Amino acid sequence: MSEQTIPPTNPHSASLVSSLEVMANRLRRHSVVSTSEAGSGHPSTCLSCAELISGLFFYALRFDVQNPKSLLNDRFVLSKGHGVPIVWAAWAEAGAFPVSELLNLRKIDSPLEGHPTPRSAWADVATGSLGQGLSIALGMAISARMDGRDSRVYVLTGDGELAEGAVWEAAMLASHRGVDNLIAILDINRFGQSEMTMYGDDVGLYEQRFRSFGWATEIVDGHNVSAILAALDRARANRGAPYAIVADTRKGKGVTCMEDRDGWHGKPVPRGEMLEQALAEIGDDLELAEPLTVRAPEREQHEVPAASAMPAPDFPADTHLATRQAYGKALAELGRVAPGVVALDGDTKNSTYSQEFLNEFPERFVECFIAEQNMVGVAVGLSTMGKIPFASTFACFLTRAYDQIRMGAVSRANFKLCGSHCGVSIGPDGPSQMALEDIAMMRAIAGSSVLYPSDAVSAHRLVGIAAETPGIVYIRTTRPKTDLVYDNDTEFHLGGSHVLRRSDGDRATLVGAGATLHEALHACELLADRGIPVRVIDLYSVKPVDAETLREAARETGLVVTIEDHYPEGGLGEAVLGAIANTPGRYHKIAVTGVPRSGPGRELMRMYGLTADSIADTVEGLLS
Amino acid sequence: MSEQTIPPTNPHSASLVSSLEVMANRLRRHSVVSTSEAGSGHPSTCLSCAELISGLFFYALRFDVQNPKSLLNDRFVLSKGHGVPIVWAAWAEAGAFPVSELLNLRKIDSPLEGHPTPRSAWADVATGSLGQGLSIALGMAISARMDGRDSRVYVLTGDGELAEGAVWEAAMLASHRGVDNLIAILDINRFGQSEMTMYGDDVGLYEQRFRSFGWATEIVDGHNVSAILAALDRARANRGAPYAIVADTRKGKGVTCMEDRDGWHGKPVPRGEMLEQALAEIGDDLELAEPLTVRAPEREQHEVPAASAMPAPDFPADTHLATRQAYGKALAELGRVAPGVVALDGDTKNSTYSQEFLNEFPERFVECFIAEQNMVGVAVGLSTMGKIPFASTFACFLTRAYDQIRMGAVSRANFKLCGSHCGVSIGPDGPSQMALEDIAMMRAIAGSSVLYPSDAVSAHRLVGIAAETPGIVYIRTTRPKTDLVYDNDTEFHLGGSHVLRRSDGDRATLVGAGATLHEALHACELLADRGIPVRVIDLYSVKPVDAETLREAARETGLVVTIEDHYPEGGLGEAVLGAIANTPGRYHKIAVTGVPRSGPGRELMRMYGLTADSIADTVEGLLS
Repeated sequence: MSEQTIPPTNPHSASLVSSLEVMANRLRRHSVVSTSEAGSGHPSTCLSCAELISGLFFYALRFDVQNPKSLLNDRFVLSKGHGVPIVWAAWAEAGAFPVSELLNLRKIDSPLEGHPTPRSAWADVATGSLGQGLSIALGMAISARMDGRDSRVYVLTGDGELAEGAVWEAAMLASHRGVDNLIAILDINRFGQSEMTMYGDDVGLYEQRFRSFGWATEIVDGHNVSAILAALDRARANRGAPYAIVADTRKGKGVTCMEDRDGWHGKPVPRGEMLEQALAEIGDDLELAEPLTVRAPEREQHEVPAASAMPAPDFPADTHLATRQAYGKALAELGRVAPGVVALDGDTKNSTYSQEFLNEFPERFVECFIAEQNMVGVAVGLSTMGKIPFASTFACFLTRAYDQIRMGAVSRANFKLCGSHCGVSIGPDGPSQMALEDIAMMRAIAGSSVLYPSDAVSAHRLVGIAAETPGIVYIRTTRPKTDLVYDNDTEFHLGGSHVLRRSDGDRATLVGAGATLHEALHACELLADRGIPVRVIDLYSVKPVDAETLREAARETGLVVTIEDHYPEGGLGEAVLGAIANTPGRYHKIAVTGVPRSGPGRELMRMYGLTADSIADTVEGLLS
Repeated sequence: MSEQTIPPTNPHSASLVSSLEVMANRLRRHSVVSTSEAGSGHPSTCLSCAELISGLFFYALRFDVQNPKSLLNDRFVLSKGHGVPIVWAAWAEAGAFPVSELLNLRKIDSPLEGHPTPRSAWADVATGSLGQGLSIALGMAISARMDGRDSRVYVLTGDGELAEGAVWEAAMLASHRGVDNLIAILDINRFGQSEMTMYGDDVGLYEQRFRSFGWATEIVDGHNVSAILAALDRARANRGAPYAIVADTRKGKGVTCMEDRDGWHGKPVPRGEMLEQALAEIGDDLELAEPLTVRAPEREQHEVPAASAMPAPDFPADTHLATRQAYGKALAELGRVAPGVVALDGDTKNSTYSQEFLNEFPERFVECFIAEQNMVGVAVGLSTMGKIPFASTFACFLTRAYDQIRMGAVSRANFKLCGSHCGVSIGPDGPSQMALEDIAMMRAIAGSSVLYPSDAVSAHRLVGIAAETPGIVYIRTTRPKTDLVYDNDTEFHLGGSHVLRRSDGDRATLVGAGATLHEALHACELLADRGIPVRVIDLYSVKPVDAETLREAARETGLVVTIEDHYPEGGLGEAVLGAIANTPGRYHKIAVTGVPRSGPGRELMRMYGLTADSIADTVEGLLS
């Protein structure tokens, strides 16, 4: 949509416009005062969007303020998270909590943090790592559409963050899917943290780019309330494409010392004369001509069907199946009993086998194409709307989304990741396709769980556990096919393990998972032939880890050897060592000790000592 | 540049065109045969770019094939790394190695891997994680411009990978800087791995997007050699902007069974009848009308000035400076003695203090704006041209570039990362700005080094060590100011540590770094007052770790306590535990055990037991 063809809208009453203008200045005042009181924060970023926030909250948004988690509500995502003081101010003015609370900004016991987090009920997600909000908002908008609701999702972005590629990943997928309940407001205030942005106040350039990415767009004077309301009307009426309102604004607008000036990012107005001057400029005659409220939505409650328990696996005893294949089958099975489960993939669904879910539930599948950051952001957005997203790709490519995963943990989001093709066992595709850092990466996420199946039965069971476990759960699957280790009725639980081989005379314990568990079991046989009985533990839950079983094994066998298809740092071995640290007994780690190469998977496993014969030799050597 | 205004070029001889067409079919034949022989690989991806590679290598490229690392050469980056069989074929036809070598594709002892890695001298970087090549090529192009050379950098991308945001980050920075020696060839063959790409064969859409991102562009029939040569002529003559050749191609072109068909990604032609048929279609009368070679460059050697040793630090004893500030000062000092050092930042240079380098060496600084993936990709590209890049941002935002860092390790690239604002000690900005996974992330990178200064002197010394240490070196800096721990003449080395407090009667060892070292030193005093002598170790080199000193401490004191401003997994604590695993003595870890919040840094450190009084209490409790 070019500027010339923007349809006219009905005019808004002078009283409404005037009240929203006054509200914008109230919000300005709160932003300046609360950050000055806190002694840190980003008031200049708030001031550029005062009219945008005023118009959005007190005119366009349909939101039950006392019931912020209602799925009937529109959603608002503050992608430029450092602008949160003005958003806290808007919620306070809307009656969410007393205005006096704003003076607790950034205090250790206040939910009003320096960047949004869900410690406040009025923030669905954490933001503050820039360029993530559009993906999250897209996930929310997709969720509303899946449920047949016409609620809208608004996202406010800065201009500096539009340099983040993740924004353009989200922009592509939003227009490709025609997600027309997604409305982005771009606050083009021309200054980044350390200098002017690449494009300054060239709002035409931003509009052109979003248009070239398939969005309906318009440019608006971001300090003109009438113009903003008209743009919001058009955005709400727009169909067939997401809508971008490109707002021409001034950073620090309304406070002379910082207005349109570089060098004021993240700096509160110093208390004293400067603060008095700033507040005088904003004014204190801030009475509204008419009362302003956030309007509640008029929507029908959508019935969320209840989930039932996932059935046990039912694999024939001679099953020879990769855990990635079993993951796909289990996900489809989970989909049948859990209507809230949705699946996402990054153009690898025929390798991760998430296509098994797609085949049955195309309307609950989001193909994200080759854009992992956006995929995880969309998953976070879906999770805030009550969905249970399972997002999959090659495990190594999840590294692409590590920041989104990290922020998902701060958001307390409930989503599941499946990384396939872990380790050197994938073979000839070479190191670019091998995940060898993924356990370290996922263990270090606060509150995460890390699951690692070794056969089809455990893969099936662990998918069920992932769905039941709140928060971020990572499932690591393997490329090559494997025989069954377990009967279909074997039980698994978060934080558990299985001792698969044991005798009273065990002289060592082998701990593995995935491909290395099969090698450990074979090594156990080889060692038995040499008269050395050893214990074998399947550490299918790498985090949380079954410390008790590991300690018992260390005490009873005196030597624990971990074998992992992963680099030595931060992986299964360090998880085990942490558990047995203060237990008597020796420890030895076998892992991938350098950058691998193309070649047959078995040869690569041999190269790093991960095969049964090599494990057996290592154990024998340690015991001699 | 629109299609209508494309300037005409001189026609190319029929003999040249015909020879390049035959060469394209030679490359096709090699690609099909080598992947069939390997039993895996991506021939269909190769076939779509046969004419593009033929024209690029044997017409446009200026490259001394026997001297592949010469800085005088043009550079070629295969962003669609899975297409490498045809690139290996092109190098073989160019005389880099015997054509017979192509049959060793993907074998464990061959440098011809399934995706490019620098195990072949003719691959500067590893690719295969998609969407990274444009950033790397941009770094190479910037390096050539810094050195005053007119060499060009060509990058071939797929279309599926254009969904990766990192591509658009690179596209923005390239046009913003006017990098006109960068030429991207987009192979639009319309199929991804698991389905059609978002945009199919809509080459106009891709052209429009690159144009809206500031590139000169044109569309070309990717199987018409004459058209390709003309486009390459225009691209080489173009000035002022990077150039994108949008090539309309067919995946699998020339082999009926896979041409323009979905479902053939990553599948070799089965040997036997299908292979015979495919080779018959490509033809075996592949004689060239005129000999083809890759032309060597005609450029003057650029003198690379030698680096001299970095001077010792010279801080007054009462210095009170954050390690991030000292980093900036040291980097500027390093810049004075090491002309190859360049710096990059992601719009945080006034927080990371890389601005100290910018102020002195603006021509050696690359402001990457808020786009960390591209920043690291550019650093990789710069490193391949002999530069020593130091890239900095908040440590938490380096998570954004984890895939690029991972691939940088596979590329054996030599670059340095500095992450500032680590841990809860940053305070009120809250968890989105706190790096608490970064040590785990960086330790897990193959061959990496992880350095962690605690004062200005160690920050200075560790910058010098980073510059001297090959590969990926990570420096973790802290936001708050700290007193000096060290004299200016203290020596540091990779893999070292400093025992700062020790006595014969030590009953425990405290191991810290950065903010927690200062707390450990204070705790040592508190414990001394309680009659408990303890040892204190500064673990400034977290990887490699000084195992000998740690083991000695464990043996001699019987209890090792690590204190880290990081989550419990994969960090300093696990590094220490790995070192002392088989040493007698107890171990205890103090770390950040949940998602933190906004608040004063000191209060947050207290919340997680990281302050001196809490450490002292913990130690006393462990000993009682």
